[in-house]
Amino acid sequence: MGGKKLHNHNNNNNGAVDTNSNNSNRNGTTTTTTTTVKPPPVTLQQSPIINLDRGDPSVFEPYWRKNGGKCTITISGHDSLSYFSDPNSVCWYMEPELQEAIRRVHRVVGNAETEGCHVVAGTGSTVLFQAALYALSTSSSSSVAAEPMKVVCAAPYYSQYKEQVELLQSRLYEWGGDAETFDGSAAPFIEVVTSPNNPDGSLREAAVANKTGNGKLIHDLAYYWPNYTPITRPADYDIMLFTLTKCTGHAGSRIGWALVKDVEVAKKMTTFMQITTIGVSKDSQLRAAKILNVVAEDCEQHAADKTFFGESRKLMAERWEKLREAVKDKKDVFTLPKYPKRYCNFSGRYFQPAPAFGWLECKEGCDASALMKAHNVLTRGGETFGVSSRYTRISMIGREEEFERFIERISGIQCVDEEDEEEEEEEEGLVVMNGNNGGDVIRLGNGTSNGHGKWLEQVEVQ
Amino acid sequence: MGGKKLHNHNNNNNGAVDTNSNNSNRNGTTTTTTTTVKPPPVTLQQSPIINLDRGDPSVFEPYWRKNGGKCTITISGHDSLSYFSDPNSVCWYMEPELQEAIRRVHRVVGNAETEGCHVVAGTGSTVLFQAALYALSTSSSSSVAAEPMKVVCAAPYYSQYKEQVELLQSRLYEWGGDAETFDGSAAPFIEVVTSPNNPDGSLREAAVANKTGNGKLIHDLAYYWPNYTPITRPADYDIMLFTLTKCTGHAGSRIGWALVKDVEVAKKMTTFMQITTIGVSKDSQLRAAKILNVVAEDCEQHAADKTFFGESRKLMAERWEKLREAVKDKKDVFTLPKYPKRYCNFSGRYFQPAPAFGWLECKEGCDASALMKAHNVLTRGGETFGVSSRYTRISMIGREEEFERFIERISGIQCVDEEDEEEEEEEEGLVVMNGNNGGDVIRLGNGTSNGHGKWLEQVEVQ
Repeated sequence: MGGKKLHNHNNNNNGAVDTNSNNSNRNGTTTTTTTTVKPPPVTLQQSPIINLDRGDPSVFEPYWRKNGGKCTITISGHDSLSYFSDPNSVCWYMEPELQEAIRRVHRVVGNAETEGCHVVAGTGSTVLFQAALYALSTSSSSSVAAEPMKVVCAAPYYSQYKEQVELLQSRLYEWGGDAETFDGSAAPFIEVVTSPNNPDGSLREAAVANKTGNGKLIHDLAYYWPNYTPITRPADYDIMLFTLTKCTGHAGSRIGWALVKDVEVAKKMTTFMQITTIGVSKDSQLRAAKILNVVAEDCEQHAADKTFFGESRKLMAERWEKLREAVKDKKDVFTLPKYPKRYCNFSGRYFQPAPAFGWLECKEGCDASALMKAHNVLTRGGETFGVSSRYTRISMIGREEEFERFIERISGIQCVDEEDEEEEEEEEGLVVMNGNNGGDVIRLGNGTSNGHGKWLEQVEVQ
Repeated sequence: MGGKKLHNHNNNNNGAVDTNSNNSNRNGTTTTTTTTVKPPPVTLQQSPIINLDRGDPSVFEPYWRKNGGKCTITISGHDSLSYFSDPNSVCWYMEPELQEAIRRVHRVVGNAETEGCHVVAGTGSTVLFQAALYALSTSSSSSVAAEPMKVVCAAPYYSQYKEQVELLQSRLYEWGGDAETFDGSAAPFIEVVTSPNNPDGSLREAAVANKTGNGKLIHDLAYYWPNYTPITRPADYDIMLFTLTKCTGHAGSRIGWALVKDVEVAKKMTTFMQITTIGVSKDSQLRAAKILNVVAEDCEQHAADKTFFGESRKLMAERWEKLREAVKDKKDVFTLPKYPKRYCNFSGRYFQPAPAFGWLECKEGCDASALMKAHNVLTRGGETFGVSSRYTRISMIGREEEFERFIERISGIQCVDEEDEEEEEEEEGLVVMNGNNGGDVIRLGNGTSNGHGKWLEQVEVQ
């Protein structure tokens, strides 16, 4: 990170920094800090970092605190002892209640065609992406053993696909990068289509697979729910991935599902789940069934605006309004994508998408995530999504207080054209950045106490 | 399977078969059946197959039906929404209650030293085996990228290790087979030590790793609990794997854990879990914590015989006694391993191991699992464990009625020296075996109704 350009100029407009009067960098030289920032509010002193890197869906917690009573489940000591759930389903470890609830919620929301699909459950949808890679790269129509199948996705793509594909250095498949620039004419490949897209919220169709006929498709529809985007039609693809995490916000339950048309693919995905984890927690499956049934019943009985999705959409729209308002005066620093209004069949109204992530674009030459980090805001930089570092992704689904703090902080963020060289140093558990303007030192606390802080900071989820 | 030798002679001594009076095999020829078997009991007609292939731990269900009240948990709609659990632990997605409960139960049982260990949670211990492979094969001391690290285990080894290692054709590691015949002098490798061993119940130490100094060890201690074997000392190894499935019988919760000494290995295992599944169901973690705490408290407050482990040991011992009694007169057909009595520190008494699996040895030339299958008993043959087909594994932890039915059926099983060629045909959803004695046809029903029966039959767990 030594050569990374940082636009770390105006730190005196917000309280997001601790200051050190005497701080040694790795070279042993001592920098004298000039404390020009006003004292931060007490809450920021205690927890100065705003972490918008992670997609932890805490935004829905207040809703569930208020309305979660109906979702309560009780599990007795003798429940769910067996590995097996449903001998009549391809996915033998899947609770029939969950399968029914999944079909019901898709039916009532109208976001996916489940008729004729097999449902495969996963520990989140992440593992089902890997199960699908396994299934597609070992099917009889693949040229197995010749070359690993390329896995591609149009940039900007969800940063974890690459990590998942590359984790075990498989000979079955390998990361092929941006689908837009991929030549799909040579051999069978896999294209992942994320719609709405993570990170940029755009609605997508296959970039290359449909053109060449060589591509097999995985549709990651984690965010195709009316809390984020208008539901314009039931999605109807070969493999569709969904997750409770982004649907209702219950990330901790780790429940995802795939709707799969080809029974042989569904069986292979089930085999993958069998060999890697021998199924999926039944406790969480039963809980997810309960939650989805409550949500579906709510939708069946009430006007869309009064449902979980309606209230969540309102919340997301309010956050986006605040963000757009705060960014309005910062056009010289960053801009946000614009989304057209569309008619949502579920809601019965036109609205603008309010994606789970904000995709900030800074001007040419500015490192957006470094800029944000210099203001104690952790985001995920464009490079991890296969595009320029002038982009960065911010979570819009975190805790209310953190989001509000971020909105307050935006006004102080400036991207200044500095041509002079700047340095960045890292020490255990903190990041020290020496600006070129006389030695402002920003100390970023990590909020943890046991020395795992730096390790934990590297944990990127969703 | 065409050339497989089947000793399918004496079918007239038990009611485990359906008969067909007219049945076409694949060659289109029609065999006429001679119904020489006496009509099977009604229960067997309804469910003629006894499945002892799988290690589904239903044996403990009656205990939990009687005593599970204290383990009941209630989960509200707003619980466990976040991915994160414990910023103070290397395993950031692990509930602190679970970690505490795990340490407590090991302390009270005395089967593992947890002091100085990091605890990493998994969706069962299966996935933690893979996490450990990843961690060990990518550590700085491994010769990464040169050659895949060999993964070995002394035969007979747990049949799923090989499947797990080979699933994604990783360049990081590959299956190396039997540790006993492995030359560990050339390069770093990984040895898995399963103790007590699955399938044969033997207590084990590393076969090759400690001799060469090149081996990294994974100890799979899933069965090192006093329900199965005397606890002679606290296990104290670098990586130790345990699972709730075999400890208390709660397979459906999919909770396993690893005790890991090296913090870097623990971090890498956590990273593996993060990338593959973003953690482990919190609902099941909290349930497992409750169950383990109830079990531990029980042990702290009562005499060993009156605890879950004591009662379970009694149950397992009774089953083994029945099995040994039934097999006593079948020495010409098969034998069972003998286990020496050992002093169990937990129980305060000497007892003979009562493993979760029975390891049947037939005489030379006999295919043990085919013999069992001819009598409608599904078992797992020796070849999947890396040894001769004259061995087969039977689950001792299934349902009571199934176990009892098996004990009844044993008397009818005979292994006859037949030199004539026999044929075996398979059709959709059933297995037809044409004996050489005039056309006895055994129809093995599959107990399912939707055409997935054959698929489900292939599901091998544990």
